[in-house]
Amino acid sequence: MKFAKGHGTENDFIIVEDYAAERPLAPERVALLCDRRAGIGADGLLRVVRAGALLQAGEVSALAPGIAEDDWFMDYRNADGSVAEMCGNGTRVFAHWLRSHGLVSSDAFTVGTRAGAKPVVVESWDANDAVVSVEMGEAKVTGVSTASMAGERFAGLGVDMGNPHLAAVVPGLTPRRLGELSFVQPDYDADFFPAGVNVEVLTPLEEGQVHMRVFERGVGETRSCGTGTVAAARAALADGGFGTGSVTVNVPGGQVQVDIFDGGSRLTGPSKIVAEGQTSL
Amino acid sequence: MKFAKGHGTENDFIIVEDYAAERPLAPERVALLCDRRAGIGADGLLRVVRAGALLQAGEVSALAPGIAEDDWFMDYRNADGSVAEMCGNGTRVFAHWLRSHGLVSSDAFTVGTRAGAKPVVVESWDANDAVVSVEMGEAKVTGVSTASMAGERFAGLGVDMGNPHLAAVVPGLTPRRLGELSFVQPDYDADFFPAGVNVEVLTPLEEGQVHMRVFERGVGETRSCGTGTVAAARAALADGGFGTGSVTVNVPGGQVQVDIFDGGSRLTGPSKIVAEGQTSL
Repeated sequence: MKFAKGHGTENDFIIVEDYAAERPLAPERVALLCDRRAGIGADGLLRVVRAGALLQAGEVSALAPGIAEDDWFMDYRNADGSVAEMCGNGTRVFAHWLRSHGLVSSDAFTVGTRAGAKPVVVESWDANDAVVSVEMGEAKVTGVSTASMAGERFAGLGVDMGNPHLAAVVPGLTPRRLGELSFVQPDYDADFFPAGVNVEVLTPLEEGQVHMRVFERGVGETRSCGTGTVAAARAALADGGFGTGSVTVNVPGGQVQVDIFDGGSRLTGPSKIVAEGQTSL
Repeated sequence: MKFAKGHGTENDFIIVEDYAAERPLAPERVALLCDRRAGIGADGLLRVVRAGALLQAGEVSALAPGIAEDDWFMDYRNADGSVAEMCGNGTRVFAHWLRSHGLVSSDAFTVGTRAGAKPVVVESWDANDAVVSVEMGEAKVTGVSTASMAGERFAGLGVDMGNPHLAAVVPGLTPRRLGELSFVQPDYDADFFPAGVNVEVLTPLEEGQVHMRVFERGVGETRSCGTGTVAAARAALADGGFGTGSVTVNVPGGQVQVDIFDGGSRLTGPSKIVAEGQTSL
């Protein structure tokens, strides 16, 4: 099977092509491909498939509004083989792949996902590098809450991005001190977050920038989390008294730009394809 | 650059070819290739090069006895880019690669390494899978010592395999209980092991088999450690009252066979090539 490997701010993915949805991927095979020692290794797998083909194969029961049958669909799988709805960083890599392989003929197009139609713009690209923006939907503030990690307590904003976030701006926090924090399984208010929560800790907005770290629900600390950067931008703007605006978010894996506007948000960041080849797995 | 990825009992490697030693690999580039998120990802990198070419390029100052100029040399690098002398699991994958790509024409040949000439036999092979045995040299018992992990104390045999080991057979230990042990940075006798130590904890020899886990010096717990399995076999045989013999060693990443004989040892185990391709890194 042909494959490629790429990453968006060091959130890394295996890309496989199956335009006509003729080769369903068993969870065990995805898990082996994503295994970092026995396989190729990645945080997740992106299967490139036509939306209409996935529908005809019965792998999705319907296409969300805005997804046409001849749109490309990002069939996203977690490293354990389970199906996931959406991944902001993965969408950049997916769009980069489509554009640099001539599967789309313009820079602006729609990517189908299980979480709906995602309009993307490939701002610049070559075979290895691209900058891609993805519409991420509304960052809904759900209230205020707290979480603790290693005995340290963080107060922040609950933000619903389709998945739950607690984004905590810490007054006076410097990037250096942020780097020294213990990022371990957080204690949180399970009444407020019944399905668990992704926790972002960040510096206050300064000259349009914040620095953040993220602990992803069920995963642990990661180098980057697409929805987390949007939640963090929302919280940083709110902390500064703004409802909308643009924020440059620095994560351990790199830098992205988040635009928060009325009723929506946009995440712009890098994609890198590092390898292509054949796998026997 | 062309590359392949393979593993021996889940100790995984990137393979790159540079027969004439024309493309020295900068440590930073090796580190990026081995980076599990920004790169391809591996425990180490194996550069396939002719011994004589490496010598002429000045990358080694001399070839050890038993290495001919037209032997293949395994230029092994750690994931951080530093040069390492030898890797038992890597040698299997290296020999598999040579054989399945027609770079050698017989099953028995010598692999050059910075730790000397390593005779290997490719017992069976196809493009994806092989079984390879590697001469590992003498497993020298240096005495008895102890180490503690998470408050639990282990008494074992010091074994010198070129690198230092403490192999502890625990009376009555079952594979299940072994799996439950806390494998954390061990406390050890720094007078006995001035350069640090790799710690193996194992079940007593039963029907020719042992189960072991290993904490590698400077790395942490790993899925497999070639020299560690030989040290463990030596200790298991000694515990049973034997100086020589054969032991099947079960590690988290799979199973290998160790033969201890007068003045030497042999490690036989699987190799798997999982992917081949091109990288832009």
